Amino acid sequence: MSGVEHDNSFLMAYLKEKKGIIDEALDRYLPGEENYPPVIFKAVRYSLFAGGKRIRPILCLASAEAVGGGSGESLHSILPVACALELIHTYSLIHDDLPAMDNDDYRRGKPTNHKVFGEGIAILAGDALLTEAFHLMPRRDMMGDVPPELLLTVIHDIAEAAGHFGMVGGQVVDLQSEGKEADRETLYYIHSHKTGAMITASVRAGALLAGAGKDELHALSEYGRHVGLVFQITDDILNIEGDRKLLGKNTGSDASRAKITFPALMGVETSRREARNLVEQSLTDIADFDHRARPLREIARYVIERKS
Amino acid sequence: MSGVEHDNSFLMAYLKEKKGIIDEALDRYLPGEENYPPVIFKAVRYSLFAGGKRIRPILCLASAEAVGGGSGESLHSILPVACALELIHTYSLIHDDLPAMDNDDYRRGKPTNHKVFGEGIAILAGDALLTEAFHLMPRRDMMGDVPPELLLTVIHDIAEAAGHFGMVGGQVVDLQSEGKEADRETLYYIHSHKTGAMITASVRAGALLAGAGKDELHALSEYGRHVGLVFQITDDILNIEGDRKLLGKNTGSDASRAKITFPALMGVETSRREARNLVEQSLTDIADFDHRARPLREIARYVIERKS
Repeated sequence: MSGVEHDNSFLMAYLKEKKGIIDEALDRYLPGEENYPPVIFKAVRYSLFAGGKRIRPILCLASAEAVGGGSGESLHSILPVACALELIHTYSLIHDDLPAMDNDDYRRGKPTNHKVFGEGIAILAGDALLTEAFHLMPRRDMMGDVPPELLLTVIHDIAEAAGHFGMVGGQVVDLQSEGKEADRETLYYIHSHKTGAMITASVRAGALLAGAGKDELHALSEYGRHVGLVFQITDDILNIEGDRKLLGKNTGSDASRAKITFPALMGVETSRREARNLVEQSLTDIADFDHRARPLREIARYVIERKS
Repeated sequence: MSGVEHDNSFLMAYLKEKKGIIDEALDRYLPGEENYPPVIFKAVRYSLFAGGKRIRPILCLASAEAVGGGSGESLHSILPVACALELIHTYSLIHDDLPAMDNDDYRRGKPTNHKVFGEGIAILAGDALLTEAFHLMPRRDMMGDVPPELLLTVIHDIAEAAGHFGMVGGQVVDLQSEGKEADRETLYYIHSHKTGAMITASVRAGALLAGAGKDELHALSEYGRHVGLVFQITDDILNIEGDRKLLGKNTGSDASRAKITFPALMGVETSRREARNLVEQSLTDIADFDHRARPLREIARYVIERKS
């Protein structure tokens, strides 16, 4: 990893293609505003189609590809789960932005859900998205030849990553540590749970649905764990140094709320070095995979180079 | 249905026994405060063990019994789903009580979750409970010989009842209709979705897991739909006339918020008559079932007679 950016035209084309597939599927799965009561579908779609990069669903598909699935018929049986991951991610953003939580007015350059629809509807839009994830996944009619017991395992795994031992736990500690002295253990807990758990679950879900063996699943879980941390460290750095226009939200917001972050704890340069080490680790995790893991490898490098 | 209360010693013993089984299972399934971060487990348990009557899980078990399941080994394979119904119910109470929603300070005689733990943790406790429901249900190790595809159907069905086309939809319309002129159509929508959908889903889940046939499932769904409405009408009447001590919350709170209710729309006496008709309908729905449906029959009568 030199500081020089490598040619990423393969990855850009890959991300664009997959994002298109996910966006189309989400639009197809999610009910429209012609349903009653319109406001809930409007609020859900407002945040769901606010320009998300669909990183979690794409990691799910790329992980399936790495073990020999994720295309053709197999792609279509994985899509509901991939989309459910994005529904859970979007719910978490809506609830995190609430006044009782991070109290953010902007997200991806647009007013946050509660600024547009009010707090009550925003809470309910988050609830609806979380519930819809678990409505979408067990739809047997869309799952092709995925064995039902495997699908149950995936639902269980994703719920574990989203719940009190995963993402919710991370948000709780994040909420409670604002304004307090940062320590490394707490920081790792927050980042590995708040962001890392669902990133890992996304990679695992794709691997499981594509029939990964035990060793492959372990390697991909480790990859997910490391990439998840890189993702959050880069987020922290972008919050300090990023371009407000590219990010679509105010930079410096973490510092103004005395949020516990990697740069606050160890400085920007050490944080960058830590992120580079984690990228190397994630590449080592999947070193035994063949060319079909190329998207996963390129995503790991991309996560650290992204500007938004 | 005369106005005379019938002997309900059978039902009281039944409810007590089943509540004991549910409470024990919930305590066993839900992590304790020794886990990290303690506050989320404390907040979840505060509301989960605040004296709920466990009507939804009990309906689930009683419905399974009505089709010949729900006891012995079969009981244990249904318990995770029965408990998940209570987790979803508890999450909905915590979120409904929030300042941005109904803004209630008391529930079952105790300060509401956000009054004790703050709004941020209360929102997250609700999120954790909803997520845990979908973590608990797909636990194959506890499901005995329930076919995995049947369990997927049940999870899908429950998520549908809890989401934007069910309970969340009902809460959205309830929130939006406060202070507006009540009409019968809106009132039925709110009650059949906010309360009715999950009551029906509880009855259906037990029936499905116990292997109900198509006709049995249809009959029990209708029973659930009618009993769910009785449940809500009685709630509305108790809110006006109930004993504050037995209810553990302030009476008259619906009127002071200009909530749309049955008594507000059609008066207390007509509401009572409507409820009695619905109880009769629910008994007709399951007239073809044998003595094993006795708990369901007694519950239908109990719902209208309850004092809290």
